[in-house]
Amino acid sequence: MRELRALRPRRLPAARAMAAAAAAAAERGPGPGPGPVPGPGAAAGRRRAPVLSAATMNPAVRRVEYAVRGPIVTRALELERELRQGVPKPFTEVIKANIGDAHAMGQKPITFLRQVSALCLCPELLSEASVPGDAKDRARRLLAACAGQSAGAYSASPGIELVRRDVARFIERRDGVPARPEDVFLSTGASDAIVTILKLLVSGEGAGRTGVLIPIPQYPLYSAAIAELSAVQVNYYLDEEHCWALDVGELRRALAQARRHCVPRVLCIINPGNPTGQVQSRQCIEDVIKFAFEEQLFLMADEVYQDNVYAEGSAFHSFKKVLFELGSPYKDVVELASFHSISKGFMGECGFRSGYVEVVNVDPEVRQQLSKLVSVRLCPPVPGQIVLDAVVNPPQPGEPSYERFIAEKQAVLSALAHKARLTQEIFNQAPGIRCNPVQGAMYSFPRIELPPRAVQEAKAQGQAPDMFFCLKLLEETGICVVPGSGFGQREGTYHFRMTILPPTEQLRVLLQKLSQFHAKFTTEYS
Amino acid sequence: MRELRALRPRRLPAARAMAAAAAAAAERGPGPGPGPVPGPGAAAGRRRAPVLSAATMNPAVRRVEYAVRGPIVTRALELERELRQGVPKPFTEVIKANIGDAHAMGQKPITFLRQVSALCLCPELLSEASVPGDAKDRARRLLAACAGQSAGAYSASPGIELVRRDVARFIERRDGVPARPEDVFLSTGASDAIVTILKLLVSGEGAGRTGVLIPIPQYPLYSAAIAELSAVQVNYYLDEEHCWALDVGELRRALAQARRHCVPRVLCIINPGNPTGQVQSRQCIEDVIKFAFEEQLFLMADEVYQDNVYAEGSAFHSFKKVLFELGSPYKDVVELASFHSISKGFMGECGFRSGYVEVVNVDPEVRQQLSKLVSVRLCPPVPGQIVLDAVVNPPQPGEPSYERFIAEKQAVLSALAHKARLTQEIFNQAPGIRCNPVQGAMYSFPRIELPPRAVQEAKAQGQAPDMFFCLKLLEETGICVVPGSGFGQREGTYHFRMTILPPTEQLRVLLQKLSQFHAKFTTEYS
Repeated sequence: MRELRALRPRRLPAARAMAAAAAAAAERGPGPGPGPVPGPGAAAGRRRAPVLSAATMNPAVRRVEYAVRGPIVTRALELERELRQGVPKPFTEVIKANIGDAHAMGQKPITFLRQVSALCLCPELLSEASVPGDAKDRARRLLAACAGQSAGAYSASPGIELVRRDVARFIERRDGVPARPEDVFLSTGASDAIVTILKLLVSGEGAGRTGVLIPIPQYPLYSAAIAELSAVQVNYYLDEEHCWALDVGELRRALAQARRHCVPRVLCIINPGNPTGQVQSRQCIEDVIKFAFEEQLFLMADEVYQDNVYAEGSAFHSFKKVLFELGSPYKDVVELASFHSISKGFMGECGFRSGYVEVVNVDPEVRQQLSKLVSVRLCPPVPGQIVLDAVVNPPQPGEPSYERFIAEKQAVLSALAHKARLTQEIFNQAPGIRCNPVQGAMYSFPRIELPPRAVQEAKAQGQAPDMFFCLKLLEETGICVVPGSGFGQREGTYHFRMTILPPTEQLRVLLQKLSQFHAKFTTEYS
Repeated sequence: MRELRALRPRRLPAARAMAAAAAAAAERGPGPGPGPVPGPGAAAGRRRAPVLSAATMNPAVRRVEYAVRGPIVTRALELERELRQGVPKPFTEVIKANIGDAHAMGQKPITFLRQVSALCLCPELLSEASVPGDAKDRARRLLAACAGQSAGAYSASPGIELVRRDVARFIERRDGVPARPEDVFLSTGASDAIVTILKLLVSGEGAGRTGVLIPIPQYPLYSAAIAELSAVQVNYYLDEEHCWALDVGELRRALAQARRHCVPRVLCIINPGNPTGQVQSRQCIEDVIKFAFEEQLFLMADEVYQDNVYAEGSAFHSFKKVLFELGSPYKDVVELASFHSISKGFMGECGFRSGYVEVVNVDPEVRQQLSKLVSVRLCPPVPGQIVLDAVVNPPQPGEPSYERFIAEKQAVLSALAHKARLTQEIFNQAPGIRCNPVQGAMYSFPRIELPPRAVQEAKAQGQAPDMFFCLKLLEETGICVVPGSGFGQREGTYHFRMTILPPTEQLRVLLQKLSQFHAKFTTEYS
């Protein structure tokens, strides 16, 4: 086998290969591509390029970047492997504070959600005495709504009808305004729903391409999806000096500028903010809705952290609720898609990949097209739909699971609130680190000062300066956080995103280690 | 609220709206789009078009079609609703024979798979005496491989490492050739993996666009994905006269013709065939591999029905195995992606959305790009990964679950084999229906004669003739099957796809009813 490897071309470094392919393509013109290739005999003596290579692959995919699981995480996994192999390191474990993955950080699942889903998967267990009756009732009700009474059957493509109804009722209770099951589309996590809605919205070529306004800093799913769909990313900057607030003046600036080179049609909002942790005021949401109305923008409201609000005086207001409270003409005209998920909140059930989008004021024909589009992938995972149902339809006072459910939920949320404050306190004691209050969501996004020599050194190595910092941090302390450059930030500023999810005492140690490392790093490069 | 609806534009019929938008766009040119719109006061007096409409949406999405869940299924759901409401119909229930959804048709889940997954979801149940020890061991082993020992944590984006290893070992046992865990990417059902691989492969514009060869008839995921990705669908026809065999001469014809207007780079094979039910001979697979080698095509082998082979003399040969047995240069050069799923086979666990792709001879840089691309969606659903593991790592002789597992598996597979024969027998007794042997997979795809007057009538109504037939069948009998036009077929021939999944006695009645309806329909339109 080894000798035959010689048949395959030596790989060129990616950049050279791409340049070579581009040159070859230019020479070839838009013709029918390479003709038939000689058979095995002829090929044996010479190199042969693979059909699919970095040079020939879909350029839109090549442009995709996703920092949350980018090179720093690859290195973290390598370090873990090295630790297991006994390679000596200045730390004993890698702490992956790069991602909002509550259970990976030791948070325990909410018992009720797991009981209901386990019973649906294995109905034989419905006879076990140890499981409370309300969990069994929920499981029976959900199984009755599954085709063939099995979680192994496909559901309807937009989700199990019963679950869509339960989600609609949950939204009504939350907002005090009507919600229709036919406007609710269940999904494989919120990411899936966000990409699907964006997919409907983008069109055009050249200067006619759809522009999508996203906050900077943003959650990089947005930039990745925009790149993949060959749409135009239009940045509006959140105001770090004012707790990452969204300012409509800045929206206006970004929009006016974008109109010179694309057709902005979509405005994405993340509230509570990821990675920035701000919670938008009701006034701000009103202003954004009015802006979207005036400028004819489709609103996408990423509200997956709606249960994660910690700061005193902050409260979650859904875009849907504010839209309806604004009254006419807004509530009849502004097109809105609002996203939610079971991966965050108090549940943290990321592994199930379950979420939903509610569409408001969306053209009925477009809703049909949406139904068609999701049907190609058949349906969202049914176990996740089941957990979602248990989330939106939780135990009620008087039911056997109620006390335990509420206690577990409150324990998670109050621990998170405590850790949000702790993070802000410890970081703000460190010189050269400045951290806005973590009003909500699951991350801090502190700004760090980096000495000019570190910035030069990073640039010499072709790295973003905060990537340089984060990689050194990882190598020396085992702490894995994501550089701000992966989310976007104002030129010349540096940040990182770190989850507040580790257990309190571990988090305290992490924050201190991180602050100390920053001080050492600053000295080293000053 | 009612009066405010007047603010929204009346919806134009889709075709008119599209034409209007196209005209408006042409007039406007590729400029920056409409300028700012007057505020609420100004807008109140006049119509206003939504941002997102059938006319302005992504045209690639508009082109997508997916017959398996198309208009006929929408009508089937309506009929079910009407039945529930007591509307009198000439039937008492709707039989959805349109989709390969085993559990919906009453097939019972394999107990072991459900026990393992339920225990992983609710580890409290590990203490229950009623669950066998080997299921508990598997659950403990899987939980230990999950971050935080929870199925609610994200897994690595290509899947849990342990499961990838177990899949690689499963492939090695199946094929007798090496398989590497790093070449295995778990996915949200095979559909997800197929679309992801296609996404990497397509590029170019105009005559430089990527051509993708697909069989006709095909499973419409392929045509839908190709439309969505704006690639070029290149049809090669299976040979109905020879049991839907794949003929390399036909591949050659399709390729030569396609090279005039696109760059064909991908050859998709479905084996066993969907909707056509043929099982490819080893010789045919060899020929296809040699063809792909000679013509420099990337092979995509959809092998999700690999456990579903019923005909005597037929056997499943994986493309990977045949590729390696062909030896050099093929085995070192031909790029292959092979897909599998837990939705079919004896498991039928569609609702979990779990599958995998193994990539062979794929450029390491491309594998990296694939890793990056899947990371944006974070990970495949963990409950599905768990079931997949139990499928590829089933109970072994001597373990407590072994006997029951084997009995359940054999019961499903032998019932399917029986139903495959039954289908073919009953259809071939009916005049005007001709059905190839169902050698494998889960469907029959009989050819039906339709009287010229029915064809005219259908065309007058703007319907494909077999859609016309299937809709009438649904209205009169409650039987829902998918017209052949949804899969593609030779011009002037008509077919439908029907699953063989209903319980035997129900299937027998269905087949007879369908044959009788066809006879009646023929008389009516003759």
